[in-house]
Amino acid sequence: MDEIFLMNNVFIIICFVLVLLMQGGFILLEAGSTRMKNAGHIAGKTIFTVGIASLVFWAVGYGFIYGEGNLFIGLSDFFYGDFTSEVDGLAGSVDFMFQLAFAAIALTIAFGGFAERAKLSAYIVFAVLFSAAVYPVVAHWIWGDGWLAGLGKQDFAGSTVVHLTGAMAALAATIVLKPRIGKYNKDGSANNLAGHNQVYTALGVLLLWVGWFGFNGGSTLGVEGAFFGYVSLTTQLAAAAGALAAMLTVMALTGKADVPTMLNGALAGLVAITASTAFVATWAAVVIGLIAGVLVYLSMLFFDKMKIDDPIFALSVHGVAGIWGTLSTGFFATPALAEMNGGQAGLLYGGGLAQLGVQFTGVAVSGIYAFVAAFIILKAMSAVLGGIRVSEEEELMGLDISEHGSYGYPENIREDEKFGA
Amino acid sequence: MDEIFLMNNVFIIICFVLVLLMQGGFILLEAGSTRMKNAGHIAGKTIFTVGIASLVFWAVGYGFIYGEGNLFIGLSDFFYGDFTSEVDGLAGSVDFMFQLAFAAIALTIAFGGFAERAKLSAYIVFAVLFSAAVYPVVAHWIWGDGWLAGLGKQDFAGSTVVHLTGAMAALAATIVLKPRIGKYNKDGSANNLAGHNQVYTALGVLLLWVGWFGFNGGSTLGVEGAFFGYVSLTTQLAAAAGALAAMLTVMALTGKADVPTMLNGALAGLVAITASTAFVATWAAVVIGLIAGVLVYLSMLFFDKMKIDDPIFALSVHGVAGIWGTLSTGFFATPALAEMNGGQAGLLYGGGLAQLGVQFTGVAVSGIYAFVAAFIILKAMSAVLGGIRVSEEEELMGLDISEHGSYGYPENIREDEKFGA
Amino acid sequence: MDEIFLMNNVFIIICFVLVLLMQGGFILLEAGSTRMKNAGHIAGKTIFTVGIASLVFWAVGYGFIYGEGNLFIGLSDFFYGDFTSEVDGLAGSVDFMFQLAFAAIALTIAFGGFAERAKLSAYIVFAVLFSAAVYPVVAHWIWGDGWLAGLGKQDFAGSTVVHLTGAMAALAATIVLKPRIGKYNKDGSANNLAGHNQVYTALGVLLLWVGWFGFNGGSTLGVEGAFFGYVSLTTQLAAAAGALAAMLTVMALTGKADVPTMLNGALAGLVAITASTAFVATWAAVVIGLIAGVLVYLSMLFFDKMKIDDPIFALSVHGVAGIWGTLSTGFFATPALAEMNGGQAGLLYGGGLAQLGVQFTGVAVSGIYAFVAAFIILKAMSAVLGGIRVSEEEELMGLDISEHGSYGYPENIREDEKFGA
Repeated sequence: MDEIFLMNNVFIIICFVLVLLMQGGFILLEAGSTRMKNAGHIAGKTIFTVGIASLVFWAVGYGFIYGEGNLFIGLSDFFYGDFTSEVDGLAGSVDFMFQLAFAAIALTIAFGGFAERAKLSAYIVFAVLFSAAVYPVVAHWIWGDGWLAGLGKQDFAGSTVVHLTGAMAALAATIVLKPRIGKYNKDGSANNLAGHNQVYTALGVLLLWVGWFGFNGGSTLGVEGAFFGYVSLTTQLAAAAGALAAMLTVMALTGKADVPTMLNGALAGLVAITASTAFVATWAAVVIGLIAGVLVYLSMLFFDKMKIDDPIFALSVHGVAGIWGTLSTGFFATPALAEMNGGQAGLLYGGGLAQLGVQFTGVAVSGIYAFVAAFIILKAMSAVLGGIRVSEEEELMGLDISEHGSYGYPENIREDEKFGA
Repeated sequence: MDEIFLMNNVFIIICFVLVLLMQGGFILLEAGSTRMKNAGHIAGKTIFTVGIASLVFWAVGYGFIYGEGNLFIGLSDFFYGDFTSEVDGLAGSVDFMFQLAFAAIALTIAFGGFAERAKLSAYIVFAVLFSAAVYPVVAHWIWGDGWLAGLGKQDFAGSTVVHLTGAMAALAATIVLKPRIGKYNKDGSANNLAGHNQVYTALGVLLLWVGWFGFNGGSTLGVEGAFFGYVSLTTQLAAAAGALAAMLTVMALTGKADVPTMLNGALAGLVAITASTAFVATWAAVVIGLIAGVLVYLSMLFFDKMKIDDPIFALSVHGVAGIWGTLSTGFFATPALAEMNGGQAGLLYGGGLAQLGVQFTGVAVSGIYAFVAAFIILKAMSAVLGGIRVSEEEELMGLDISEHGSYGYPENIREDEKFGA
Repeated sequence: MDEIFLMNNVFIIICFVLVLLMQGGFILLEAGSTRMKNAGHIAGKTIFTVGIASLVFWAVGYGFIYGEGNLFIGLSDFFYGDFTSEVDGLAGSVDFMFQLAFAAIALTIAFGGFAERAKLSAYIVFAVLFSAAVYPVVAHWIWGDGWLAGLGKQDFAGSTVVHLTGAMAALAATIVLKPRIGKYNKDGSANNLAGHNQVYTALGVLLLWVGWFGFNGGSTLGVEGAFFGYVSLTTQLAAAAGALAAMLTVMALTGKADVPTMLNGALAGLVAITASTAFVATWAAVVIGLIAGVLVYLSMLFFDKMKIDDPIFALSVHGVAGIWGTLSTGFFATPALAEMNGGQAGLLYGGGLAQLGVQFTGVAVSGIYAFVAAFIILKAMSAVLGGIRVSEEEELMGLDISEHGSYGYPENIREDEKFGA
């Protein structure tokens, strides 16, 4: 028994490390997907974002999610400092670290909506408020003793809690901030403000893929039956299928194998399988990934049509694929796996509409809460701070100079680009 | 017993993650070793390569290697979906994931022969066929119930199965595709089409080095006796010796410590020790690494002399060092370690020529099979697809634009380089 | 018992891998913090630095630290080759690998003082001598059976042994080498020879942060009580606090959130907590990190005032924060944690000045030894080798060309920068 306890902890602390490594994936994905003049800003903000998320989670976030409280919020365990307790077969501190890493990922996803035009100070304030008042609420509802958990909402590793919550906050941000200068033309057509480094983006996706085995594998919360192996298997297949589906779709429609679309396909597969990884057969993981890969490309086209500027594709990757993934478990969960992991079989196996209904309710309510809360925060901040977007001149010169005082690549900026172009 | 089983699985799933991380090393190594105009293509293809390797391995590869069959091929366990079985002290799914990661590495090595000039569509078709019909055959012979396993061929972690197979396929590709434009002059001299980013290459080698502890350490397939510690020790020493030997050799011969050569030395040490890591003394690991480091540099010179264009040095690093490593165990295996790990002592310890003969047979037959199979596939594809190389114009403009429709670094391409130079 | 032994080994070998991954963080941090014309040199040297550190540690370093000997040096276990022994609940080889990784980190830190102007050959010779005669001496004193260990010096994971020793050697190097051309003006003011890539620097810090959980977590040397969880928690909070404190300080004083300063704040928090991670409450970890973040920025200003050129901020990050961290445990160690981990309570808990005095003695003597030894080595090398700095012309053209014969980024160097500017 003691050995199992220790093994759980070894496994989960490593999963924490892998989820933290995903922040390195985001540094590369986000910096690579945006322009050179904002690269230092975007890469650097990931570091203090992890800082803010960690300190807020320590002070109040963990307590709001897992503390004793009511169906809507937890209210104990603030300023966590425990070094002896056990929680569900884990040391309290190990469980804390693993949960902390998820909170930081949700905030990093939300940043997608701020990219290349938000004031640094505004983002800092938002980061504190999101980490204190948006993410923990949804996490309490589904993973704590909240009302959606009571209804039986399944979200194995956070398709809803982490990805959708982050994406809906990003949506609020991109709506409040409005599109980047030069993104949309008067005739309604969109320009591709191409990211400056596809090697970064590809490596970023690889690091995210690697880290996802901590994200999903660790969500078994222990080593029982070595079930993390099967979780890894469905995760791998969905990511693979997502990449190929997105690549083949964009090749079929445009004749070119657009690299960012293919990469988003891999991520969409990963996001989608996150809810259902423990519940579905391998063939279903492939199907979930294939559909996610097609959806993510159509979604990218859709948001551009809607003039919703989504520089890092957070809405398509984490939002649309997150919703699809959460619903997919309602279709594909097999009776054997559902029983093993405490869920309900999906529609395909005669599971009835009840579970699908719960999944849909969970997605809808969580998504709406995250969007509305983020929207109110940002509107209030706009009023109080006198705007949350940098000036046109600052946006043109880039946030590296305007907010941080130095270029991210001082030797790469061409003379004609300096201070705006 | 149950605890040991769980521990084996925790260890091997982490080793799987480390081997997957090696793909990040390859993204950097390959992109850094080639030119800017192909960087998005090369980095991006690693992601869908992992995708193809994963889906093909799931569908047929695992079954061809480990399924019930005959001495030449396995023929069961297709479309793997198991979540309860045990295989050799591991959960079936954990064993599957670890083996999958090796299959993907072999394909990534084979890509080296395609770099900077193959059609994307041709590479995609090749990737499917290599993953289905080349790699699994050699893997079945040596690691499955195949005829080389029956003879007693030792290949602890894949010097032959993974590195040599990949390298021989790369050799077939580079011969069929012919050298890149501008690589060789009419007088027979070679130009250095220098890779565009040595920071990428160096970091890539470091990530490969890190991941190799999963590759070699995990090849113990469990935690028995914590023997992975000793495997890590010989691995580290061979890599260190390889880097220094290559650096000192190139310094002695040219007066300059060429960075790519030194990096290839580290990789050559790692490839060479892969076959013998569990069988040799630490001083022998140093010797194996030193020789690998010298060999890799001489080999790079040799292939250039032969006008065999090897952009990412796959032939020298994975081929030549892979052969040296496989043979080295026939020389250096100590009686104590050979007994512990089920092998034969080497020549130096009076082990006789028999084992060296088996090793040589295994290398020769596996290498020839991989080369011939890849060659036939590529020739057939050339005939069917009307060529597998992009046009001269497309090669000059770079595959980022020609195959994917956008530059990998849109802001770094100078005007005079755009669309060819 | 056997299961615990195996679990310890699994955990520590993974921690070794994480500490090795920190070298990837240093590749990015160091290359990103320096100029493009030295990038291939700086990234590449990390690989052979790990090579030198590994071979010297195998030959003599491990024996000097942990061998049988006297209070000042160990004198057995050279050319380590053990594959059966146990040391303190670990396989000898696993313990060896973990310790090896620390030795390599100390050398990498010391390199900071050589950056952008030392001869490659001089650095290679220094690397051998530092690894053989500087680091192992301090490590024996504190972690072996040395005299500081006898006095009760606490250095949980190496604030003194690794960080301070490396930083003091870097200080000696930067003094002997003198500042880079163009760093200081005649009027005493300093120029910012800005690092060329902040994405590298940020990602480097993230990889260091990730690896630090192996560095600190693994310093528990086993899985007992899953105490690595609490160690991870204080580590995370100090890093977070350091990043935010440095960012807010530089914003307050200059109006801009300088990215390198913020990143150094995160590192300073990590260095500082390294000594005290197992001994302090979470609130104290936050305080230690906050103070480290402020200190690192003031220290950067101070060294520039003193005209001590510290290109990669090794002195501020590893030196100043290392000292602060080592002393902090004398203030903040709680009675409960000190008892659990075999230390003394800090001043704040009525622990008396004795422990603070021991900590101060340890820091002072170790720091002085590392500085003096490195200084003598470098002065002797200067005399014997006829100088350890490249010529002015070579420094201007960059070490990529002068020492390695090719640019790190051949396609990014502008014509007007080639061969010096």
